[in-house]
Parts: sequence; structure tokens; C-alpha cells
Amino acid sequence: MIKIAIMGYGNLGRGVEAAAAKSGDVSLYGVFTKRAPETLKTATGAPVYSASDVLSHKGRFDVLVLCGGSATDLPKETPLYAKDFNVVDSFDTHANIPEHFAAVDSSAKSGGNAAVISVGWDPGLFSIARIYSESVLPEGNNYTFWGRGVSQGHSDAIRRIDGVADARQYTVPVPEALEKVRNGGNPTLTTREKHTRECFVVAKDGADKEKIEEEIKTMPNYFADYDTTVHFITKEEMERDHAAMPHGGFVIRTGKTGLSGENSHVIEYSLKLDSNPQFTGSVLVAFARAAARINKEGKTGAFTAFDIAPAYLSPKSGEELRKELL
Amino acid sequence: MIKIAIMGYGNLGRGVEAAAAKSGDVSLYGVFTKRAPETLKTATGAPVYSASDVLSHKGRFDVLVLCGGSATDLPKETPLYAKDFNVVDSFDTHANIPEHFAAVDSSAKSGGNAAVISVGWDPGLFSIARIYSESVLPEGNNYTFWGRGVSQGHSDAIRRIDGVADARQYTVPVPEALEKVRNGGNPTLTTREKHTRECFVVAKDGADKEKIEEEIKTMPNYFADYDTTVHFITKEEMERDHAAMPHGGFVIRTGKTGLSGENSHVIEYSLKLDSNPQFTGSVLVAFARAAARINKEGKTGAFTAFDIAPAYLSPKSGEELRKELL
Repeated sequence: MIKIAIMGYGNLGRGVEAAAAKSGDVSLYGVFTKRAPETLKTATGAPVYSASDVLSHKGRFDVLVLCGGSATDLPKETPLYAKDFNVVDSFDTHANIPEHFAAVDSSAKSGGNAAVISVGWDPGLFSIARIYSESVLPEGNNYTFWGRGVSQGHSDAIRRIDGVADARQYTVPVPEALEKVRNGGNPTLTTREKHTRECFVVAKDGADKEKIEEEIKTMPNYFADYDTTVHFITKEEMERDHAAMPHGGFVIRTGKTGLSGENSHVIEYSLKLDSNPQFTGSVLVAFARAAARINKEGKTGAFTAFDIAPAYLSPKSGEELRKELL
Repeated sequence: MIKIAIMGYGNLGRGVEAAAAKSGDVSLYGVFTKRAPETLKTATGAPVYSASDVLSHKGRFDVLVLCGGSATDLPKETPLYAKDFNVVDSFDTHANIPEHFAAVDSSAKSGGNAAVISVGWDPGLFSIARIYSESVLPEGNNYTFWGRGVSQGHSDAIRRIDGVADARQYTVPVPEALEKVRNGGNPTLTTREKHTRECFVVAKDGADKEKIEEEIKTMPNYFADYDTTVHFITKEEMERDHAAMPHGGFVIRTGKTGLSGENSHVIEYSLKLDSNPQFTGSVLVAFARAAARINKEGKTGAFTAFDIAPAYLSPKSGEELRKELL
């Protein structure tokens, strides 16, 4: 059995808890929280401890699964905890990954631990799809589409607008762009051509809806470069129709082979997820299994999904894998 | 630079030759053949040697890429050559993989070499899709569909029928079955419900076409369990319309997460290939790169795609991979 602990009990922490309960070879030691432990009850009844006490639990579990956010939590927490524990995180600020990797690597090495960073689905499973298909088809193009799914960052951005009580933003891939890519057209696609943005907004009483819509559609970086639609709905409709956190997307590589590039090939990887945090939590648990195993083999430092052989993620033995899945 | 050599110059060997030419870090030392070397001219002008002389070339290249068939060549050749060379093969008789692995493993270990077996797309990339998705969604079902594509084995079976001059058989996934799986229906599908078989046959002059069609449709294992259609065409139509060797397929996993399995997820991996042998050759070259690297690290024995971290397949450095593909 591999014993894991969870740091942070938001949506992602709950997803890890549920995934651990479904994995026959993984048990949950407990949940660490920055809140007052006695105010928190876990879904499975797993014990709750104070995050500030985590060091006193050193040696009692194999991997600490870090479930904080990429903006402020993980840049500090992953290097910090990698000194004393094997850790796994889902750090997803693509541009800062090299810096994060370096900080975690030196800290994990100093403590003799294995730290697997940036595993989830993008970065994570999508990155894996990209590296295999680029390695196999060096002459070609990668395309990544996201959605249809809820973007937390974009929803938050709308909520900060004056007069907005609540908001949910869906990122939607443009079907025509997807078809063009799939057909091997190797198109050059602008931001606007790849995705549209669909917003559901609950306005405060008496708020100026036209002004809110205008502010959303012209918001730089978030919406200005996209075709954006805004729907005003009631609080009740928001709760009834938009409580789930679906997501997904597509990684497509089109490439050519043959001495004169005479043959075309399309590799497509796609996810359709009912619950982003539960799925991401499931990926974290699979990589927690890998972290425990590679550290047992004496490996230390930072690792990404690229550095870990697929067999480490499965509870099955090499014989079983070759017989059942190869 | 990684230096590879090719053993066997059929369609697959030619595919490896073309893939090596497209890989900046891979060079082709030469081609080994069982035919008289002077009767063979390679597409790139690479030198041709006699297969029986291969031992005299020991130490002059890094990996020998075995391009023989799974029925009779590879079961003998992979264990034989793994004694003296790092090797890669595309052994694809699923049921015999455990036995093949064991034979290759002891031979490769005795010679201090790395032998990567059963890499292509199924087994190979499809196996990789299966292991990642099963590891992430332990509660779920795997489905593999093949096609639309040419099955060499089924084409050969038709050619052995009396009165048949030439034949090409396409395996076709049933669209309704694919849709059911994609929609998370977890259907139990019979052989007949998953694939249909489409045959194009050139009959010899005066042959009894009705009898040929009947023999095809009732052939046990190959066709009897499928809905099969047979089209009689001319030799000219065969050459004009069926010279290519397209293939592909789908690996889909549907699974549930949440303490009460309340959320569903679909992971889909698909390939659409213009040329099966060129694509398989491209996969072999990527794993040849991996074989050379892991052997340089001191690893010996047999390996499958499950045992090799994705980074070994790419010519890019860890820094480049994290920056560009993660």
C-alpha cells in the first residue's frame, strides 16, 4: 500500500480524496489544512491536521499531494515541502514551469525526495500526448484546443467587474478550426479562430447590464481577442445549470512521412471530463504512486510526466501489463 | 548522432529508412538483407550488406532495427541479435508477447544490450494510451477499434482462396458502436458489432465469383464472425485505388470518478494514417533513440513502451521539453 496525505482541502483536494478511495493500492493518511482542523469534516472521514504541524508527521506517509493553487500556493509550497516529503503538484502556469522546476529540484535533492510537478491534464496528459506524437512525427504541427469547459480564471475575472454577483465562463473550441486541423490542413489559426468564450452572469440588483457586457467583451487578454457571448441569468439558474465543473480538450498532431513527405498522418488525443477537479485529482494519485516508487529506487529531485515511464503509474506488475494492456 | 542499421528491407524497412532521414539526430549506417546485397538498391543510397555478415559490423552502429515479420522472423531474430546489438522490434502477436519478452530479455542481458520490443502503434502507441488512461481512471472500460485500414493478414487469407488473383481487405470500425462508447454508454460489444470487413478481390479468368464470395464470408476466425462485403474489381482498379496502406484506429476509455461514481469521463486516442509501414517505421526510430540512450545509462534486457519514460523518445533536452511541450 502507498500512503498519501493531502495538503489543501478545496475542490482538488476532495478530488484526490475520492481518487485514493477508488485505488486499491493507495490509502489516505489524512488531510492537512490551513484552516482550523476542527472546522473541517472530510468526505471519507479521513483525519484532519493543521498544515503548520505537517513536519511532525514526517515518515508516516509516502507522498504529500499538494492541492493548492498555482498563482500563490504552489510556487512557495512545493519547494518548501519537497525538502521533507515526496510530493506531487499540478502547477499549471506554463511560462513559470522552468523556474518552478529548478526551485523544486534543488530542494527535493537536498532532502533526498522525489517531487513530481505539473501533473494534471494540461500540463500532464496533454503534455504526454504532445511529446509522443512530436517524437514519432518530427515533421509536423501540434495543435491544442481547450473545452468545452469552465475556466476558473476567466470566471473570476468577470466576478471582479462592478455589478456582477456571480459568473461562469466556458471556453469553447471552434468546430470549424478543429475540422481543418483534423483534415491535415496545417492551418495557421489566430486566437479568435481557435476558441470562443461563453459567459453566464448573475447581475446585482439595479446593475447596468449593457455596461457589464461591454466591460467583459473588451477586457484585455481575457476576452478582447475572442468572440465572446454574454448571457444574463438568475442566481437560481446559475445554481441549477452551472454547478458542475466540466472541461476537456484536444491535442492534435498532423505530420508527414516519406522521403518526399508523401504521406500524411493525424494523431488525436482528447478528453471529455464531467469534473475537472476530480479528474485532475485522479491524475495526481497515479503520479503519487509513481513518486513513491521512483524514490524507493533511490531517485531524487524534480520530475515531470516526461521523466516517468508509464509502468510506474499503474498498480499492475510488468507481467500483468504486458499480458493485459500491451 | 545515433547510428542505426536496418535488418530487412521490405515496406517496414523502407519506412524506417525514410524516418531516419527525417530525424536530425539519427543516421543510417546501412541495411542488412537476406537477399543478395548487390541486387538491392536503397531509396537513400544507404549501403547494403548481407544479413549473414552482421556480426562483423558489431560496434559500428548503436541500434539494429529489426524489420522482419512477427510470424516467423522476429521470434527467432530478436533474441538472436539482442545478444550482440541493441535492438528494436515491432513484434505484434499480442498473445505471444510474454514468451517473446522472456526470450529477448535473457539474451539481451547476457550481451549487455537493451532490446525494446513490440513498438509500433498496436502494440505501441495504443498500449501507451491504454496504460495512462487505465492508471488515471481505474474504474472504467477500455475499448480499441481498428481501421479504416488494410489488414495484411486478412488480405493474405483471401489470396489463398482458389481462383483469387489479388485481394485487399479493409477493417472498418462500426460508427454506431464508436458513438455508443464515446457517449459513455459502457456497452458490451460483440465482434460483429465493433468492426465490419470490406474486401476487394481480383478474380482469375473463369473463376467462380459466387463461390469465392461464399468462401470468404464463411472463413472461420477471419470473416465468419463479421459482416463482410466483397467487391470484385479489375487488376487495373486494384493498382489504381488500393496501392496505399492506410490504417488507424481508436483507443477509448470511459470511466467514473467520485465517491459514488457520480462523474463520467472519456479519454480518446486516435490515429489516421496514410501509410501504416511508414508510420510504424517512424515509431521504431523514436524507440531506437530511446534504446541507445538507456543502454548508454547501463540498462540491459528487454523493455516495452511501458518501461521507457517519454523524454527518451525525443531529441530535445529536458529544458527544451519543459519549455516547449509541457
